[in-house]
Amino acid sequence: MMTARNILKFTRNTVFGTTFGLLAATSALAQSDDLPSWNETASKAAIVAFVEKVTKENTPDFVPELDRIAVFDNDGTLWTEHPMYVQLAFALDRVKTMAPEHPEWKDTQPFKAVLDNDMKALAAAGEKGLIELIMATHSGMTSDEFAKIATDWIASARDPKFKKPYTELVYQPMLELLAYLRANGFKTYIVSGGGVEFMRPWAEKVYGIPPEQVIGSSIKTQFEMRGDIPTLLRLPEVNFIDDKAGKPVGINQHIGRGPIAAFGNSDGDLEMIQWTTMGGTTPRFGLIVHHTDAEREYAYDRDTPFGKLDKALDVAADNGWTVVDMKADWKQIFPGK
Amino acid sequence: MMTARNILKFTRNTVFGTTFGLLAATSALAQSDDLPSWNETASKAAIVAFVEKVTKENTPDFVPELDRIAVFDNDGTLWTEHPMYVQLAFALDRVKTMAPEHPEWKDTQPFKAVLDNDMKALAAAGEKGLIELIMATHSGMTSDEFAKIATDWIASARDPKFKKPYTELVYQPMLELLAYLRANGFKTYIVSGGGVEFMRPWAEKVYGIPPEQVIGSSIKTQFEMRGDIPTLLRLPEVNFIDDKAGKPVGINQHIGRGPIAAFGNSDGDLEMIQWTTMGGTTPRFGLIVHHTDAEREYAYDRDTPFGKLDKALDVAADNGWTVVDMKADWKQIFPGK
Repeated sequence: MMTARNILKFTRNTVFGTTFGLLAATSALAQSDDLPSWNETASKAAIVAFVEKVTKENTPDFVPELDRIAVFDNDGTLWTEHPMYVQLAFALDRVKTMAPEHPEWKDTQPFKAVLDNDMKALAAAGEKGLIELIMATHSGMTSDEFAKIATDWIASARDPKFKKPYTELVYQPMLELLAYLRANGFKTYIVSGGGVEFMRPWAEKVYGIPPEQVIGSSIKTQFEMRGDIPTLLRLPEVNFIDDKAGKPVGINQHIGRGPIAAFGNSDGDLEMIQWTTMGGTTPRFGLIVHHTDAEREYAYDRDTPFGKLDKALDVAADNGWTVVDMKADWKQIFPGK
Repeated sequence: MMTARNILKFTRNTVFGTTFGLLAATSALAQSDDLPSWNETASKAAIVAFVEKVTKENTPDFVPELDRIAVFDNDGTLWTEHPMYVQLAFALDRVKTMAPEHPEWKDTQPFKAVLDNDMKALAAAGEKGLIELIMATHSGMTSDEFAKIATDWIASARDPKFKKPYTELVYQPMLELLAYLRANGFKTYIVSGGGVEFMRPWAEKVYGIPPEQVIGSSIKTQFEMRGDIPTLLRLPEVNFIDDKAGKPVGINQHIGRGPIAAFGNSDGDLEMIQWTTMGGTTPRFGLIVHHTDAEREYAYDRDTPFGKLDKALDVAADNGWTVVDMKADWKQIFPGK
């Protein structure tokens, strides 16, 4: 006969036992499936080992959730940066769109080079020319207006190689990595040399990273009332360059505490990865995405104007940083089939 | 006889009924107790009405949690700013502490004025003198070193009127307001003219606001390797002044979306409250703390060098902003008895 006590015992052993058993199985399954686009190589093993180490309570390596801060470069780390930075493609398109209002551009460099599709003349204009292009196309409107311009462009523009929207040229393995870290209590930030107001309008939808967790370069803005409407006008003046030694500065300014994991792909990320991984008392993780897949994406490192990886590649091994070999480590590059 | 169906019905009506009844009662009680240090005046009613409005689902005024951003000035809004800004008291103390290493200060203004406790001479040195004091005391060390200096000072310093640590001269009604907003899904930020690295070391403990939600003024920092240790050196150069028209700029730079509620106490907060409350499509809330209690704290507005409230007071009513009368609206000023 089944007494009340027996019923309780039965219930505990079967219902709860099964439930907990299932939960445990689900959790183990979920864990092994969190990074399905990563091949079972040393890179994936290093990531998983780090995450398991810092999340294991009652061990010396445990890091409380509040301190689990992970910073990601964007160009070349989360999405493609060849044949040129996406934001540069945006600036060039903007020059063409705005040209009718600026007849003088037909005879003025570097604008003439853009309108003539003369990449040689554009390269000759150098960094100074580039800044001129950025200022002409990125300032003079309010922050809200610029957000709309960036949103509209990103929805309609296509890259020259894959003929796809740039927001589809994000790396599937890195999307999985972002989600995996967040599922393990990490707060994920973008720390990019790109413009902060260029990234924010779409970063939440594409990466699950909200505007307040996007750190980037910026131009100065100025508060002004337009009648009863307060606005921020974008000025043609550099405010902050969030690249190289600027990245630790931007992180400290914005987050106010050090990350424990940093992900980049170029020498522009060197100081950020140093700042993150060296001198801390808890476990740290540094990772560099090495573009080695000319077929599925692009192959480049020491000799490219966009995402040059040279010094950071030289020092990676000595510092214990993981170098991802895109071709060998990633089953799949972009989302979808 | 009690049939199975009757048992279920009975259970639903009693156990669940009672539970839900209790939950509802608890919730109502909790709500009415969330702001116990606020008198039952129009200010409290306005706060509660706003929070209830934006949190009520399936209504046109509902605001999703992600957009429930509330920004708080610090000096004079969350803690006391008289007889002088706390950070100025810190700078003056630092001058005295550092004087032995700077024998030349005995004969150089504005340092001589500080060492002589000559407030008249100090005032005569004006803003230029103030910046000199700040630079001399706030730069030349790493960010980590400065955090320790600020932490040690805030633990030991006492204010001249109440003889208490400054972190105990925070406003109990505002602490309750911060907690009440957070309990209702708001993300609370400090947006202060004070130095961001001066506030971050203690803001989490005192206000429950983590470093990444503290926005403030800053000096420039520079990344450098000291041997194997990456550091950020604080330079004697202003980076950003997070005051007046700088506050909307700082908010946009840092958060990347507009707050729906802003809390301040001086003309330094005017543009922040305008930016928050004007031109939005969802309900907005602006509040100004008016220092009217000479006995329990201080009474000042239009005629003070610290926390001048003039223009913002003039336009508050027309803009529908709530003006807190500290004497009438607050049962208690500081925490404890």
